[in-house]
Amino acid sequence: MAPRPTPADKFSFGLWTVGWQARDPFGDATRPELDAVEAVHRLAELGAYGITFHDDDLIPFGVDAATRDQHIARFRKALDETGLVVPMVTTNLFTHPIFKDGGFTSNDRDVRRFALRKVLRQVDLAAELGASTFVMWGGREGSEYDLAKDVQAALDRYREAVDLLTQYSIDKGYNLRFALEPKPNEPRGDILLPTIGHALGFISQLAHPELVGLNPEVGHEQMAGLNYAHGIAQALWQGKLFHLDLNGQRGIKYDQDLVFGHGDLMNAFALVDLLENGGPNGGPAYDGPRHFDYKPSRTEDMDGVWASAAANMSTYLLLKERAAAFRADPEVIEALATSKVGELSTPTLGDGEGYEEFLADRSAFEDVDVDAVAARGFAFVRLNQLAVEHLLGAR
Amino acid sequence: MAPRPTPADKFSFGLWTVGWQARDPFGDATRPELDAVEAVHRLAELGAYGITFHDDDLIPFGVDAATRDQHIARFRKALDETGLVVPMVTTNLFTHPIFKDGGFTSNDRDVRRFALRKVLRQVDLAAELGASTFVMWGGREGSEYDLAKDVQAALDRYREAVDLLTQYSIDKGYNLRFALEPKPNEPRGDILLPTIGHALGFISQLAHPELVGLNPEVGHEQMAGLNYAHGIAQALWQGKLFHLDLNGQRGIKYDQDLVFGHGDLMNAFALVDLLENGGPNGGPAYDGPRHFDYKPSRTEDMDGVWASAAANMSTYLLLKERAAAFRADPEVIEALATSKVGELSTPTLGDGEGYEEFLADRSAFEDVDVDAVAARGFAFVRLNQLAVEHLLGAR
Amino acid sequence: MAPRPTPADKFSFGLWTVGWQARDPFGDATRPELDAVEAVHRLAELGAYGITFHDDDLIPFGVDAATRDQHIARFRKALDETGLVVPMVTTNLFTHPIFKDGGFTSNDRDVRRFALRKVLRQVDLAAELGASTFVMWGGREGSEYDLAKDVQAALDRYREAVDLLTQYSIDKGYNLRFALEPKPNEPRGDILLPTIGHALGFISQLAHPELVGLNPEVGHEQMAGLNYAHGIAQALWQGKLFHLDLNGQRGIKYDQDLVFGHGDLMNAFALVDLLENGGPNGGPAYDGPRHFDYKPSRTEDMDGVWASAAANMSTYLLLKERAAAFRADPEVIEALATSKVGELSTPTLGDGEGYEEFLADRSAFEDVDVDAVAARGFAFVRLNQLAVEHLLGAR
Amino acid sequence: MAPRPTPADKFSFGLWTVGWQARDPFGDATRPELDAVEAVHRLAELGAYGITFHDDDLIPFGVDAATRDQHIARFRKALDETGLVVPMVTTNLFTHPIFKDGGFTSNDRDVRRFALRKVLRQVDLAAELGASTFVMWGGREGSEYDLAKDVQAALDRYREAVDLLTQYSIDKGYNLRFALEPKPNEPRGDILLPTIGHALGFISQLAHPELVGLNPEVGHEQMAGLNYAHGIAQALWQGKLFHLDLNGQRGIKYDQDLVFGHGDLMNAFALVDLLENGGPNGGPAYDGPRHFDYKPSRTEDMDGVWASAAANMSTYLLLKERAAAFRADPEVIEALATSKVGELSTPTLGDGEGYEEFLADRSAFEDVDVDAVAARGFAFVRLNQLAVEHLLGAR
Repeated sequence: MAPRPTPADKFSFGLWTVGWQARDPFGDATRPELDAVEAVHRLAELGAYGITFHDDDLIPFGVDAATRDQHIARFRKALDETGLVVPMVTTNLFTHPIFKDGGFTSNDRDVRRFALRKVLRQVDLAAELGASTFVMWGGREGSEYDLAKDVQAALDRYREAVDLLTQYSIDKGYNLRFALEPKPNEPRGDILLPTIGHALGFISQLAHPELVGLNPEVGHEQMAGLNYAHGIAQALWQGKLFHLDLNGQRGIKYDQDLVFGHGDLMNAFALVDLLENGGPNGGPAYDGPRHFDYKPSRTEDMDGVWASAAANMSTYLLLKERAAAFRADPEVIEALATSKVGELSTPTLGDGEGYEEFLADRSAFEDVDVDAVAARGFAFVRLNQLAVEHLLGAR
Repeated sequence: MAPRPTPADKFSFGLWTVGWQARDPFGDATRPELDAVEAVHRLAELGAYGITFHDDDLIPFGVDAATRDQHIARFRKALDETGLVVPMVTTNLFTHPIFKDGGFTSNDRDVRRFALRKVLRQVDLAAELGASTFVMWGGREGSEYDLAKDVQAALDRYREAVDLLTQYSIDKGYNLRFALEPKPNEPRGDILLPTIGHALGFISQLAHPELVGLNPEVGHEQMAGLNYAHGIAQALWQGKLFHLDLNGQRGIKYDQDLVFGHGDLMNAFALVDLLENGGPNGGPAYDGPRHFDYKPSRTEDMDGVWASAAANMSTYLLLKERAAAFRADPEVIEALATSKVGELSTPTLGDGEGYEEFLADRSAFEDVDVDAVAARGFAFVRLNQLAVEHLLGAR
Repeated sequence: MAPRPTPADKFSFGLWTVGWQARDPFGDATRPELDAVEAVHRLAELGAYGITFHDDDLIPFGVDAATRDQHIARFRKALDETGLVVPMVTTNLFTHPIFKDGGFTSNDRDVRRFALRKVLRQVDLAAELGASTFVMWGGREGSEYDLAKDVQAALDRYREAVDLLTQYSIDKGYNLRFALEPKPNEPRGDILLPTIGHALGFISQLAHPELVGLNPEVGHEQMAGLNYAHGIAQALWQGKLFHLDLNGQRGIKYDQDLVFGHGDLMNAFALVDLLENGGPNGGPAYDGPRHFDYKPSRTEDMDGVWASAAANMSTYLLLKERAAAFRADPEVIEALATSKVGELSTPTLGDGEGYEEFLADRSAFEDVDVDAVAARGFAFVRLNQLAVEHLLGAR
Repeated sequence: MAPRPTPADKFSFGLWTVGWQARDPFGDATRPELDAVEAVHRLAELGAYGITFHDDDLIPFGVDAATRDQHIARFRKALDETGLVVPMVTTNLFTHPIFKDGGFTSNDRDVRRFALRKVLRQVDLAAELGASTFVMWGGREGSEYDLAKDVQAALDRYREAVDLLTQYSIDKGYNLRFALEPKPNEPRGDILLPTIGHALGFISQLAHPELVGLNPEVGHEQMAGLNYAHGIAQALWQGKLFHLDLNGQRGIKYDQDLVFGHGDLMNAFALVDLLENGGPNGGPAYDGPRHFDYKPSRTEDMDGVWASAAANMSTYLLLKERAAAFRADPEVIEALATSKVGELSTPTLGDGEGYEEFLADRSAFEDVDVDAVAARGFAFVRLNQLAVEHLLGAR
């Protein structure tokens, strides 16, 4: 049976996940609205430790300040009653038609100014609620038509916006880090900063790169056919895994937002192993929230919503158990050594060896028995089969 | 009719392109070997200005030094006879079975040392032949099995290798810049640095980031479903478009390496417009070689090879003509303005405006007539249709 | 300049195309409702000849009979005023939440019965309005979870439904043909009858296969990475191209429904050539409506909607001109012969040759100079370059 | 631990699988040739029951009749010694350069005649060795350039070839059934009969459709983003699952041919459940060979080859155990009922109900409480989570 989650597992959910009414491009809502207060209570009962939200799903777009305050107060009360925390807050620059060509990078400057003001307000709220991470998904920043968007100018504007936000956060003494969430497409034909990599490249150009990292989502990388565990490893390697979005996706198609593990289960196993245990030879692990950004399928009623929320956590915990057993299995340890997985941590050059010594080392090149080295087998298939058998609970 | 190319157009070809014998995963070679000297002469006759090569396609793997020198001497003579230049040189860390788990990031340290030595030798040759760019495609750096490769350690080794090469080049006084060529997969299940973005992120972690940029290939980005023109724009924006590989790809599938323009023609049009003319409002253009990295289809004989080489250049020149006409068309200029393409170059904040003034500007947020702004149409479809009609030569 | 469309071009549009309010999975509507009567008038002014509709976009779901009749009467009046015809009618088994697990193949039998009744009513209306084709897009017939849908049983139910509808149409003396519209995914994770091929296979199992054919959509096939022109050729070859949906898609991603030609332009060119001119050596062409099933981008206002509607027709007509010029060009005719495109129409066996004579013909096998035959080049790249140059209007 | 395979499990392997020397588009062979006799012995030791082969991997292309007979005799001896059977034989119309534009559908009639003769010879050998299935993978039947292939003519020639082969087999009294193997692309840009569906459609047009079915491969369908288990279900439903190729693929990319289960593990679970147990409510299962068509990764030496062969069988048997436990679990049985999976086997119309009675049944339409029916949840996520937990061995 699956283990029961507890707050120590650091599972968090977006308010918009269990609250999704299941309206899709070809169909109307199948579920009623969910009150944010009920969401907090139900998630707490299920064992979650945190809840996150967009501005517009906690507080309807355009309401007056008093109404806004009431929404916030009710929400805070529910947090206090349950002990749930708000480790991350995000912003919505995509639902309202005003953002139809993007927020920070809309061709329309009026829209860009409106968007930036909206985000500044939400940054204040994030700080007020004690969040440590502010996520920005730029799903509308992009284009359908190559010649209708000046991408270089758009990146200038994107940078202008992020630089302003980080400076504001510093000046205000907020302890916030900003996390960009890449996605290749949908709802735009091509979204700017489409992958983990593009966002990492962009961050290197910012005024305060140390305050900006990533919030990569399983399905978003997989929509580009990319290996999510690889991408997470690069983000960790660059110190940029500030937060993450766990869910499931079945290949290159529309954004499915399935339950975590209901997509590519093998990659999910490698991911949990990496997040929990770090690299096989000591690379960093992840200690932030295990945040689920999924959508309960349109076929589900509210009971199905809560079952699906629980399923995310159960699968994660099962994979965590499997990963621990995998790491501890003596046959796996031997197989990792046979495949030289650990040897990759040894620098290619010797201690103190410079290129002059290296060029002088005939054993490195001139005297190599190339055919003999080439004939060495890596035994990767056997290692992977051990992983499959651990995943299947068969060892 | 298509314009005739001249060396002023800066077209270059990989020796391995016209020299490809058309062996594929399911079939034997359909064409004879092509002598490098003949390739130089034929490409010069067709109007190219440059030729590029891997170590192993100019000089067979493993030959002795004297034979190596003879190959180089013959090649130099052909260059002298034709005036063709060698703007770029690259290395082959993928064909020989010794590289079956990669070169710089093989789990086997002996392989990594061998690979690095092989590349150092080729760097010397690149400098000797006057190349300004050294391309590295790490097609074998990757994995099929998530738990068989420590990606963080692999990126450490990748960085170690690139840092050594840049330091070596600096110390030797070589005027070389290094260009990484991303690819998402094939021949490995998942290749490290799979996209333009991931390589940009990696470069930001290097000892000499100023010496390392990109050599993005049309088909490689499109194999991840990404917009090549967008990726090129980001590379230009970050000052990292050191070189590029032009070819054609029809969607997410195996690496097709078709003739440039024989894939996504609309994106090729936007690309040529960007390379030749820069951003629509003054962003940088590209002035390096227009390098074709394609494969003449397996169905072609040698006449077909040369026809295909010519086709790359013809299509490029036709698209360049179409792009110039597009930019000059008064209706296009008006349509770009209607779509506010240029307005994106205006900073979102006013001149000297800080966030305090911005927060105090009620016209930016509190007083915005949200519905009115949201109702403004961007007329992107009309702009794109103008692009289509220019592309079709119908205006 | 693009030619002006006239009703003789047989262009038709779905009422739901120009009427799309641009609500998408991440955003609210950006455009007002469009009255069906206005749609008829505007499309007629633009040069269309036909309009098509779903039950629920002409008549709101669930209204009473009198209201329904009023909607139909207003619509008929507009048709009479403009001369627009209704060559095709379709049904909506996807928007209402009752169809969340499908219509004909919902696991819930109550839903299946409701769906089938809804469609029977719409079949009556189709006949009443003089349509000759009844399209059925089963976008909700499918699953996200492999073990939650008995696909064999689902195909039994699908067949039961189609068999009932064909029998009903026959008995009523309706002159209707039914056209299935395949799609691989979205809104369901995997849709039943995902491609042209699967629908062709299914049709072969029906009680009245002669009355059931296809309505293939450009983007739907391309969402599976398939060649739309190839699929259309197979449908024509099997006599099953009853109708078609023209639009644009940029690769394997969510369903974009762009303007025709704003996706894969090369394939659109081959398609128009096939539809207009038939196979290069006499295979059948298509003479039904050129029906556009696209969505005006969310960034467009109503002016943009009408511009996009016009763009579909302009692009089609331009491609038709290019295709005619391609066919007539003597160099193309020679190139087609060199590539032996016509030779494929010659049967492989000789006239009257059976396998006994064939086995006795040593010139067919034992005496073949295999290397010589293998060395023959097909010159396909040159032929394709001629096509590119015709497409670009450069010849 | 994984169960040990025995011949009763009906596992078979292509000779070309364990014999693959690991030459790929970017690299030379990493493994020596494998003698067919050794392959037979090793596979028998591992517990396989069958071996299959192409003409050219058992017998080198172009050898004389005496040499050919020797190869066959040695192979038969090994079969006799081990008890291994040859349930299927296939043909190679793709490796030799003569087939560069296809075999049955090459534009060159000389090639078509040569191909057909080659296949007739192999059909004789298949019958001689007692095979019951003759597989034809038309990997070269296709095109890269839309206007260079007359697809309708190509389908005529394809049909001509298959009709000749079936007639020949009938006349000779061979007990052979023919199985077409679809693939969407690679090595051709677009292959004819790209999916299970297209092949089913094609078969419906043949002279002897009863003798022609399918040999679907896991990776080939997944290369088009299609659900393999769904495709197999449709093939079973139409009585056309004559044989199948099991392997692993990680999404839409080049053809990976991984070990079975090393790709999409969830879909592999659903597949084994379907093959072994049939539909959940009694639909047909599959009783032919469980044939592995995979490639041992290029990183593996010969020990790795045999480990990979064993891994295919282990994973299959583990999934078979998990599927049996899933079916037997009372909570699963209850969950299937809650999700109404079985209800889909009940006809939509009642026993003896025709459309007149159906139209008269107000409870089916007019009196339905649409909102109440729409509100019913299907609980699919819970059912899928039960499947995940069974797959993980956690129940």
